Amino acid sequence: MSSPAPGRTASTPVDVDRVVRAAEATRPVLADRTLRAGLLRTAAELLAAARDEIVATADAETGLGAPRLDGELTRTHDQLLAFADHAWTGALLDVTIDHADPTARPAPRPDLRRTKVPLGVVAVFGAGNFPLAFGLPGGDTASALAAGCPVVVKAHPGHPATGDLCARLLRRAAAKAGLPEGVVGVVHGFEAGRALVEHPLTAAVGFTGSLHGGRALHDLAAARPRPIPFHGELGSLNPVFITEAAAAARGSELGAGLAASFTLGLGQLCTKPGLVLLPEGPAGDTVIAAAAAAGGATTGRLLDERIDSSFRSGVRTMAELPDVTEVPVDHAVPIGAAAPGAVRPRLLAVPAARLAAGDSHRALLEECFGPVAVLARYRTPAEAAAVLARIPGTLTATVHLAEDEHGPETAELIARLSALAGRVVVDGWPTGVAVTAAMHHGGPYPAATTNATSVGTAAAERWLRPVVYQNTPQTLLPPELRDDNPLGVPRRVNGRTEG
Amino acid sequence: MSSPAPGRTASTPVDVDRVVRAAEATRPVLADRTLRAGLLRTAAELLAAARDEIVATADAETGLGAPRLDGELTRTHDQLLAFADHAWTGALLDVTIDHADPTARPAPRPDLRRTKVPLGVVAVFGAGNFPLAFGLPGGDTASALAAGCPVVVKAHPGHPATGDLCARLLRRAAAKAGLPEGVVGVVHGFEAGRALVEHPLTAAVGFTGSLHGGRALHDLAAARPRPIPFHGELGSLNPVFITEAAAAARGSELGAGLAASFTLGLGQLCTKPGLVLLPEGPAGDTVIAAAAAAGGATTGRLLDERIDSSFRSGVRTMAELPDVTEVPVDHAVPIGAAAPGAVRPRLLAVPAARLAAGDSHRALLEECFGPVAVLARYRTPAEAAAVLARIPGTLTATVHLAEDEHGPETAELIARLSALAGRVVVDGWPTGVAVTAAMHHGGPYPAATTNATSVGTAAAERWLRPVVYQNTPQTLLPPELRDDNPLGVPRRVNGRTEG
Repeated sequence: MSSPAPGRTASTPVDVDRVVRAAEATRPVLADRTLRAGLLRTAAELLAAARDEIVATADAETGLGAPRLDGELTRTHDQLLAFADHAWTGALLDVTIDHADPTARPAPRPDLRRTKVPLGVVAVFGAGNFPLAFGLPGGDTASALAAGCPVVVKAHPGHPATGDLCARLLRRAAAKAGLPEGVVGVVHGFEAGRALVEHPLTAAVGFTGSLHGGRALHDLAAARPRPIPFHGELGSLNPVFITEAAAAARGSELGAGLAASFTLGLGQLCTKPGLVLLPEGPAGDTVIAAAAAAGGATTGRLLDERIDSSFRSGVRTMAELPDVTEVPVDHAVPIGAAAPGAVRPRLLAVPAARLAAGDSHRALLEECFGPVAVLARYRTPAEAAAVLARIPGTLTATVHLAEDEHGPETAELIARLSALAGRVVVDGWPTGVAVTAAMHHGGPYPAATTNATSVGTAAAERWLRPVVYQNTPQTLLPPELRDDNPLGVPRRVNGRTEG
Repeated sequence: MSSPAPGRTASTPVDVDRVVRAAEATRPVLADRTLRAGLLRTAAELLAAARDEIVATADAETGLGAPRLDGELTRTHDQLLAFADHAWTGALLDVTIDHADPTARPAPRPDLRRTKVPLGVVAVFGAGNFPLAFGLPGGDTASALAAGCPVVVKAHPGHPATGDLCARLLRRAAAKAGLPEGVVGVVHGFEAGRALVEHPLTAAVGFTGSLHGGRALHDLAAARPRPIPFHGELGSLNPVFITEAAAAARGSELGAGLAASFTLGLGQLCTKPGLVLLPEGPAGDTVIAAAAAAGGATTGRLLDERIDSSFRSGVRTMAELPDVTEVPVDHAVPIGAAAPGAVRPRLLAVPAARLAAGDSHRALLEECFGPVAVLARYRTPAEAAAVLARIPGTLTATVHLAEDEHGPETAELIARLSALAGRVVVDGWPTGVAVTAAMHHGGPYPAATTNATSVGTAAAERWLRPVVYQNTPQTLLPPELRDDNPLGVPRRVNGRTEG
């Protein structure tokens, strides 16, 4: 959402129009699911073959480090293959067939066969913190191509060269797979992003980023003459509830786990646990001591200046609130030896009662990107529940339980968490998002602007719309709807699953 | 979207708040799918038992006639039962389970189990033209209750007493089924509708009505501090393409079919065929002659003054455009014998070339509610295709073919129609919408504001959001996610369908 990176020219409205039209022109060929699957597989191959160059380019731009970026590239590669399979099997068509029923009342029923068709050009606004897995070649792009939608990416200003490199590789993959290169386009610059959302041929938007920028683009998408779906992920607090018994049973382990989770990627993950509900008293103290002892192992520079200044000012604002105290974190790296501009993990503690009523401590219930976690000490489970009731929609909600805490009270707690979040995690940490059919990466606003997921194969549903064919002769039906199911697509026929 | 009916008091903001809060309070009990199914079945029963009163009340308010309203009540009844089954089987939960995979790369996968949870209070704006099937007890209400969402209906000013009567019956059904009456609430008046969309506890909106009113509410829903999904159906042209060969083979039959379809319900159906692409020449003339001969069988008063005046002014505007000619319709009822204020079916003809370029005849490509159809005469299939390319998103697109027209050109035509519409009809008429799993009643904007359907069991998806449980102990999982599947819910486990 900021200006193009230094030395990079912003795309003009004419550029945006040209790239979107080139993408639009590829829609007919993208209708072929076999070609799409081939494109995604070839893309995975070319990204893997260019691994060293990609990792070096992304590291130079983001400082995320080669091991992390290498892992992210593997994830991106595997995700492309998962979406290739998803396109290839036809599962994403969600084919549903109801044969004619002349005896139906109040009127006879015609033969109805439903499949899904691609929406059109998808605009992708990738994340700053994942230049690959949520960046240009990431989940939004992969799922849109799997759905048959060409993609135009607004390159993130934090890693434009990585974006351009990946775009070249994806376009080369398209050519190798027999598709026009226009299936993937790139534009640069803030105004280009707005123009992309407003372009009449843009059919949907995928966005990962900040509440402020995302909401502005959401509003643009809704205000168009023809509104389009805006699937945005705008920030998440990811609360963690640690019960008294869990803290008593394994406080040190929980503290170390928390430290590892909130400092992972220097806290620049959408699933970073930002708020921990922790009991008052010695069991909770053990968790804090262990988190403080382990929390300082990480240090480094944040992704860019905007994140750095938001982090520093955000932590300052929170720390200055009444009754907020800073927990001193043991630093493995002496302050003088850290890189210039490096930040250190921070832990803040506050009585939960401060969060349970009034808006004075509202800032503690909002996402602060970077390595900071707030420890809210509760005196009673009811006090903790009152805090949960005030948390905005979140991607994840986690609970740590003792081994025997599986009764009705815990069930009620789990129900509370599921009311807040798209993913409920038990006895684990929210960071790390598996790419599977069952995954849901989303949640009530502002975690997500729609009820869709941006991770997992279901992410392709965002870019498709249903079309039903009524009494249509076999030869005129899309192949997946014909009686003989020549492509072997999984289908639901008269209520029964086939294949 | 107009003021409350004469003699009816508009609900105040305080009323709206009270009704929404009463609805919200019922969410915990509605979580029980068995209770929901019971509510829907009891509601169907009570509506059927009150058939005479409902039909009389609705007829007094709408003048739609007892036979039509009786059929509509049967449809409403059956729809409630279909959604009861849908809730009861658990198919709407779309349960997806992926077991843990410790060998997965780049990281081991946790156990992930996804189900769906209700969004919260659903605001329903029913249609003027279907006081029952798309009214208070209609598809939006039935699908929302099936999904576990309480409903607050903004009563349509065209049939407030019907709405109030049906609300009383639904609330009585709730009490009989062991649920609080607040599961269904009603408010009256234009401002109450706005307050309902803006209420912080309203979680989603279902709307059937005009482009103007629907777009205003869509924009309100998107501009809320927490935007909510707005599933609106805002108008549809429902083009019909008749090929030269089809017109030659069965012109009279097609003309009679067209007349029956565009005059059904006095043309006050969202699926009324508003534009017919018809070949120039004698074959097309036969269709027109037959339509003109049969088209006058219907006469009557439109639903309300607003629709009446829009119809009259809309037809006048269209008829005055250059090269538009009126086709005289044979009237079965002599003009003097028709009811006061009655309207007669109208047929307008225009060269397709007039629609294929420029915006002068744009009015012919917009929905005009009421018994009017525009016959656009094409000289070549390419000219007809050029008209299709200019039609806004529509619920349905229909084609009539000769028996041997099943080749590639026809396949291309079908593809064009599927790009426009949510439902493609071959050799039939778009009026009549079956309630089945495969049905899709929606389409590109403005036919619908989202990619969801408002008819058929899939309509319940609009009111649910996914939640995934990660590594959650068996006893803490919702029953549909437990290994032993105690409720026998259909599930997809590790990619395979179960049950």
